[in-house]
Amino acid sequence: MELLKERIRKDGKIKGTDVLKVDSFLNHQMDVALFAEIGKEFKRRFADCQVDKILTIEASGIGIACIAAQYFHCPVIFAKKNQTKNIAGEVYTSQVESFTHGRIYNIIVAKEFLRPGDKVLLIDDFLANGAALEGLAKLVRDAGAELVGAGIVIEKAFQPGGERLRAEGLRIESLARVKSMSEETGVEFAD
Amino acid sequence: MELLKERIRKDGKIKGTDVLKVDSFLNHQMDVALFAEIGKEFKRRFADCQVDKILTIEASGIGIACIAAQYFHCPVIFAKKNQTKNIAGEVYTSQVESFTHGRIYNIIVAKEFLRPGDKVLLIDDFLANGAALEGLAKLVRDAGAELVGAGIVIEKAFQPGGERLRAEGLRIESLARVKSMSEETGVEFAD
Repeated sequence: MELLKERIRKDGKIKGTDVLKVDSFLNHQMDVALFAEIGKEFKRRFADCQVDKILTIEASGIGIACIAAQYFHCPVIFAKKNQTKNIAGEVYTSQVESFTHGRIYNIIVAKEFLRPGDKVLLIDDFLANGAALEGLAKLVRDAGAELVGAGIVIEKAFQPGGERLRAEGLRIESLARVKSMSEETGVEFAD
Repeated sequence: MELLKERIRKDGKIKGTDVLKVDSFLNHQMDVALFAEIGKEFKRRFADCQVDKILTIEASGIGIACIAAQYFHCPVIFAKKNQTKNIAGEVYTSQVESFTHGRIYNIIVAKEFLRPGDKVLLIDDFLANGAALEGLAKLVRDAGAELVGAGIVIEKAFQPGGERLRAEGLRIESLARVKSMSEETGVEFAD
């Protein structure tokens, strides 16, 4: 998606060779006009699929997922992190290892919102090691729902998540795939 | 907002006299078609104001704020909870006491996204004790930005936050004000 790549080139901030800060438009301050274009592009790429629900994860996936859902005409569910108030039995849960924050946390979704047969599209802002996406996919499988695929805004294609999950059969559509980056030369995109 | 009140009557779940669960359409599963109507109503109520930025708080405010922002044609910033990766000096911070979860947490916004003179509208899903809204208002004041007001989806008018913050001069527009509720008789709305 050229508009997105241009924005990453213009406003993304690179730290070292693996941190790409896009918090001026994607995951702290959010440019909702850009999100609308992102939502349309997800709809275009998954136009062949029925999507009953979009599943994302708090916090930075929520805004993108909600605006994208306007083009799919479906509700969004966000998986919650570290929720303690719901008792076992009422929720689907899976563990996610955060490499960024160096810890493991639980994500949960109330069982009533993911039903057997639901066709579910995952949406998230980043794909790197794939831990969050894998955790979301497990929630969908545990519910007996059908995983349509995953829409990702930025994939760090130099990290192993995308390759591993595609090899497992997950359809992933990433709008910008970063092949490599450095503070000196900027971002290089795959394809 | 009648559409919202009807939805709360239909799908809200009351526990005791002060817990109103609306997680089937507002803050776990999210009905983005309803959010669009909520966004239009916020725009109608704040039509007399210039709004440069919408500020909300993770996680459940984000979806509503993003869809509302489409009607204000402005970006959204979400305040992050318990962020440890940003160093002091780069962020505005304030403390929020959560009565629901019985703990105090910090919220932060990167200084670069709240500038002196910015006209800022707060948006959140609930107003009860007012702690979150007060924390957000402090971030705006600390930045030297101008607080336009607050758009709230559901106000628990039987809790003290709304009255206190209005007395302090904050303009609050709540789309549904709950006067009282009980498992037996349901929700009674103010006005």
